[in-house]
Amino acid sequence: MKTRAAVAWAAGKPLTIETIDVRGPREGEVLVEIMATGVCHTDAYTLSGADPEGLFPAILGHEGAGVVREVGPGVTTLKPGDHVIPLYTPECRQCKTCLSRRSNLCTAIRATQGKGVMPDGTSRFACEGSDVFHYMGCSTFANFTVLPEIALAKVREDAPFDKICYIGCGVTTGIGAVIYTAKVWPGANVVVFGLGGIGLNVIQGARMVGADKIVGVDLNPGKRAMAEKFGMTHFINPDEVGRDKVVEAIIDVTGGGADFSFECIGNVHTMRQALECCHRGWGESIVIGVAASGQEISTRPFQLVTGRVWKGTAFGGARGRTDVPKIVDWYMDGKINIDDLITHTMTLDEINTAFDLMHEGKSIRSVVVY
Amino acid sequence: MKTRAAVAWAAGKPLTIETIDVRGPREGEVLVEIMATGVCHTDAYTLSGADPEGLFPAILGHEGAGVVREVGPGVTTLKPGDHVIPLYTPECRQCKTCLSRRSNLCTAIRATQGKGVMPDGTSRFACEGSDVFHYMGCSTFANFTVLPEIALAKVREDAPFDKICYIGCGVTTGIGAVIYTAKVWPGANVVVFGLGGIGLNVIQGARMVGADKIVGVDLNPGKRAMAEKFGMTHFINPDEVGRDKVVEAIIDVTGGGADFSFECIGNVHTMRQALECCHRGWGESIVIGVAASGQEISTRPFQLVTGRVWKGTAFGGARGRTDVPKIVDWYMDGKINIDDLITHTMTLDEINTAFDLMHEGKSIRSVVVY
Repeated sequence: MKTRAAVAWAAGKPLTIETIDVRGPREGEVLVEIMATGVCHTDAYTLSGADPEGLFPAILGHEGAGVVREVGPGVTTLKPGDHVIPLYTPECRQCKTCLSRRSNLCTAIRATQGKGVMPDGTSRFACEGSDVFHYMGCSTFANFTVLPEIALAKVREDAPFDKICYIGCGVTTGIGAVIYTAKVWPGANVVVFGLGGIGLNVIQGARMVGADKIVGVDLNPGKRAMAEKFGMTHFINPDEVGRDKVVEAIIDVTGGGADFSFECIGNVHTMRQALECCHRGWGESIVIGVAASGQEISTRPFQLVTGRVWKGTAFGGARGRTDVPKIVDWYMDGKINIDDLITHTMTLDEINTAFDLMHEGKSIRSVVVY
Repeated sequence: MKTRAAVAWAAGKPLTIETIDVRGPREGEVLVEIMATGVCHTDAYTLSGADPEGLFPAILGHEGAGVVREVGPGVTTLKPGDHVIPLYTPECRQCKTCLSRRSNLCTAIRATQGKGVMPDGTSRFACEGSDVFHYMGCSTFANFTVLPEIALAKVREDAPFDKICYIGCGVTTGIGAVIYTAKVWPGANVVVFGLGGIGLNVIQGARMVGADKIVGVDLNPGKRAMAEKFGMTHFINPDEVGRDKVVEAIIDVTGGGADFSFECIGNVHTMRQALECCHRGWGESIVIGVAASGQEISTRPFQLVTGRVWKGTAFGGARGRTDVPKIVDWYMDGKINIDDLITHTMTLDEINTAFDLMHEGKSIRSVVVY
């Protein structure tokens, strides 16, 4: 079949809207009509060329929501008409990692996903006669896309696509980091580095589970009002307290240090600050942000020996098929706020504007509605 | 009163045996007759002058066992005749850390302990008319010493002093790291870097809790036989597999990586290897070794984002007054082996020999019996 898609032909070039060929779903695969998709920093990172694993030409996009239109042979848990959120972190429930019950990083299709193809090693996309790569196993910048059954979370049908698409990445990453990875407890003091889309979701996750102080750290004072709306109780601007005094300021405001800190920037220097602002004895720092290729984090081992814990999270530690539908419920129940985070909505033809708004710092999240 | 003690007069100089003055216990303090003391790497580290917080003259030693001889006013939980193990990590059960139930790093007397004095700011030791500093709040290289009540674990009276003194540091550090900090589960694959006294105790702790593979890493093949006796199932010599191939060798032998790794050397390069050999998704690395002052650990944040956890431990995460008596029971019940780890026993007059044996790599643990 034919569909419209934004194609990334080469690093650093704007996307172009093309009519592409989509091949039908094979064994264990599902054809999904994407109804809406967010545009995320990770898409921009790959498009920029900085991602050493980036492949071109590709159909980017990994934060979508849509409707099942056709299922391939052997698919048993989904049927046409089901509402779904694509999962860049699948959940096969069969691999060593899924069965470990200790991680969400399912390995069932990792090798082929990283190569931009489906599990059988081929692409379902072609444009002008040549294959186009899949991206993060999702490719939600195509109106129709194909995914493995294990990479789709079935969600309730009354949830609006143009909001819940954000649960496909940013919302789950931030809220999941709080509840699945860190397991923040009621009364904990939480510190969040970076008040962008991920940081705001960490903040509302911390509020949801009953955190006490929720301290935001950002160089941009313009971020303060929105963060307070989402639950931030204290704001620290490194340029006001001194960039080398951030750790002290946090220890001061929390009365000893963070029980949990979250790095939502992707900067190795703030990752170090996020660890070192943790409370002696038990404070845990969770790396969410993705650092530039080749960069390293450092600290004195004394920080660990005296009880601080350094960990990280991908997709918020959430098991896609199991946890994503619950987060959709939380949104529908009013427990979490997504509407205020989606600052711009546009058509596929305008998708390059979403990247511009991101780079200019004018959006929290832009959503393309097909 | 007068007693004999090995005094460290200056960095880098051998200890000298002196007759010193010991002042009686004050409010909340206890006079203990030390019956036996281990000589630990930490004593050697401070004596060498490399410890930036080292104070001289001091009475070193922190791994002892003895008998209460006198209690000061207000002491309620100990009486003369009680058998005790001094605790360089006290347990007040009142401070924020003790009440957190999340850490053993009691802060009740931390400030004064670090300054080489008792909680009231003064020393109980004098030699030739001048005060001598306490060390780690213990000073077990004196036949009689004074400690706060909260820094003494009461233990059963049938346990031999010349063995259980080792529980005052090395045994508890290694076994505690396994059971209190890492919480190793039955069937886990465990990797231990450094097969000295701490590493061997990690190994027997891992065996005690039912670990599956217990992999030892050491440059010295001479360590292999003893480690196997304590439970090591696989041995990796970095000089055999290639020093830059250690992580791959561990991933290979464990079928994917360590569930838990323990760094018992104090080398920042092996700390990195210990993290990176952990299983993707959930492997945890615990730093036990103390690195040289100013050194830093580094890794790519990707290691954390893909699920590895970096933490550390001091005194094995054990709460001294609560957990040390249990470890003494485990020794008396034959659950753990201490006898084979104590390779040398000597008198106080021979204490410098203990340091020589350590530096020559000829001892696992030397114990001075008064």
